[in-house]
Amino acid sequence: MQNGERMPEYHLCYQSLGKLSDNKDNAILICHSLSGDAHVAGEEPETGRSGWWESYVGPSKAIDTDHFFVIASNVLGGCGGSSGPSSICPSTKRSYAMSFPSVTIHDMIQAQIALIDELGIEKLLAVIGASMGGMQAMLLAVKYPKRVKNCIPIASSMAHSAMQIGFNEVGRQAIRSDPKWNHGNYYNSEPPEHGLAVARMIGHVTYLSEYSMHKKFGRKQETRKSPQSGSPVFFSVESYLQHQGSSFVRRFDPNSYLYITKALDMFDLLAGRPSREVFQNVESQFLIISFHSDWLYPPPQSKELVRALKRSNCIVSYINLSTLHGHDSFLIPDPEFASILQNFLYQCLQKTRLV
Amino acid sequence: MQNGERMPEYHLCYQSLGKLSDNKDNAILICHSLSGDAHVAGEEPETGRSGWWESYVGPSKAIDTDHFFVIASNVLGGCGGSSGPSSICPSTKRSYAMSFPSVTIHDMIQAQIALIDELGIEKLLAVIGASMGGMQAMLLAVKYPKRVKNCIPIASSMAHSAMQIGFNEVGRQAIRSDPKWNHGNYYNSEPPEHGLAVARMIGHVTYLSEYSMHKKFGRKQETRKSPQSGSPVFFSVESYLQHQGSSFVRRFDPNSYLYITKALDMFDLLAGRPSREVFQNVESQFLIISFHSDWLYPPPQSKELVRALKRSNCIVSYINLSTLHGHDSFLIPDPEFASILQNFLYQCLQKTRLV
Repeated sequence: MQNGERMPEYHLCYQSLGKLSDNKDNAILICHSLSGDAHVAGEEPETGRSGWWESYVGPSKAIDTDHFFVIASNVLGGCGGSSGPSSICPSTKRSYAMSFPSVTIHDMIQAQIALIDELGIEKLLAVIGASMGGMQAMLLAVKYPKRVKNCIPIASSMAHSAMQIGFNEVGRQAIRSDPKWNHGNYYNSEPPEHGLAVARMIGHVTYLSEYSMHKKFGRKQETRKSPQSGSPVFFSVESYLQHQGSSFVRRFDPNSYLYITKALDMFDLLAGRPSREVFQNVESQFLIISFHSDWLYPPPQSKELVRALKRSNCIVSYINLSTLHGHDSFLIPDPEFASILQNFLYQCLQKTRLV
Repeated sequence: MQNGERMPEYHLCYQSLGKLSDNKDNAILICHSLSGDAHVAGEEPETGRSGWWESYVGPSKAIDTDHFFVIASNVLGGCGGSSGPSSICPSTKRSYAMSFPSVTIHDMIQAQIALIDELGIEKLLAVIGASMGGMQAMLLAVKYPKRVKNCIPIASSMAHSAMQIGFNEVGRQAIRSDPKWNHGNYYNSEPPEHGLAVARMIGHVTYLSEYSMHKKFGRKQETRKSPQSGSPVFFSVESYLQHQGSSFVRRFDPNSYLYITKALDMFDLLAGRPSREVFQNVESQFLIISFHSDWLYPPPQSKELVRALKRSNCIVSYINLSTLHGHDSFLIPDPEFASILQNFLYQCLQKTRLV
């Protein structure tokens, strides 16, 4: 791990879609954001659940699995099959809980590199990721310049601002102050569901835009029987957020939420160094995408990355899409976003095969 | 109460500063926001604590107590001396808790009117309030057109958007899901401090601006001993928010937080009616102020009020101040804001005395 600790072993859960070409030149790594997992597209056989990026990944879709070999793994520290705080520690035979080593974005990409090594892929045609996935994509291009041909960070940032850290910290505090959290030791009892639900609700408000919330809910009301907050009137947005919170707790581990949000906050690509030094060995070409209405990862953060790359003579394209759905825009079907991704990726493949 | 319930009695805690003129033409009512109270300025004798609007209220200050008689009361439903959920119900001899009637902004101003009746003031020279205080100011001008000469809503809104409701609901959910909340019955045990602290932390992030958080904290770090979230590194903004949360619980009642945020969310000045109908009897002149960097009560909400008043032929001045401190700007000393308030109020008095 980046902090010097060693794990005796770790698991990485991954999904692949499409077919790796004979010369292994068509591999695309998709890195997920905070609450994502390896299940990027396709129906899960047991549950029937579709993938988190179903709208953009699949045959003939933006990330076309007829042409590309798509890999997506759950991050280290997560709870979607990869090793994380809920995993069993081989020496104690109990869940790691808070004894799981501190995880950074750097640790996440080390695990991703081990995976593509395992798959025999020397060079990724592209690495794509939104939000935390974008941080992984950037860092892969910087730390493994020979392994990444094209890099697509979406709605991301080179480092969290105080406000982004602030929102994460409120979520963490909600989890830690839930008595069921019990310093992370809840795996043999009830998890701190309420804390996690509140954390998720905060996240959700920040993922949406003023516009999308207005369109979806406005001031629509529902009337319920029991006055829970000094008034029998409930707004639809309240029910929605409560539902988002309570459904999240069925699929996410509260300790993973603590670890992963901390990894997000700790990420600092430049860390005070001049961008020219950081990007000096980068061989990747960049496509950077931000969303006009995203106030959690506002476009200026993407523009900063664009400027830093330009100053370092990297090849970079940038588009600030005028979608209205805030940070969540990357999850919502949008023909312009889709065609930009699709065209860029086809061009990547074409260029590779022409060389 | 607006919902038809009746309270056998209620208390209203108020502060007054300055001297009421013989013809009672110099009274200014200040209405507080969510977490404020009656203590607007001056040192509290017992605690030495200064008032929440100390920077703007006092001798020779923007709201000059050498010239004006300033009244500020704690809202109905609050916990700063006025009747609220923590008050003792005369019939049961126990705290009302959630049996306190639902409180609206309308109920709050009814109590304010009763207070100025009591003080023998027929007409307020001005009513001023920021945020929730602005809602009270607007509604006073609408419901009691003969009682308000000038109205100054600051960083406020005619109705909460889905996003504003969303942030409030996350705070309420944090309180309600704290097991110590116990459906509001905690007055003989420990209050749901953790829930309230989380609610306050969320509030705090929304009160600040990207800029002010960056200036204050940036990515400054502290190192602590115990890894509380999978990493021993703490950002200064985390400590600050934790401190804000934990100090708030010493002075605020969680049930009041539920009632007051609900009153905020329920407020809807137009409620679908044409503005001309709502404002038809208004005699007040308006000074409306918003802050450029306020993303919780964004300037477009103030502009909507300006347009609605203009359409109704009301006299209205509007300024969008370029302060950088987000919603909190109204609390932070700013010479431009101060001189705008001061000049407007002197003019109000001058005009009154010329008539």
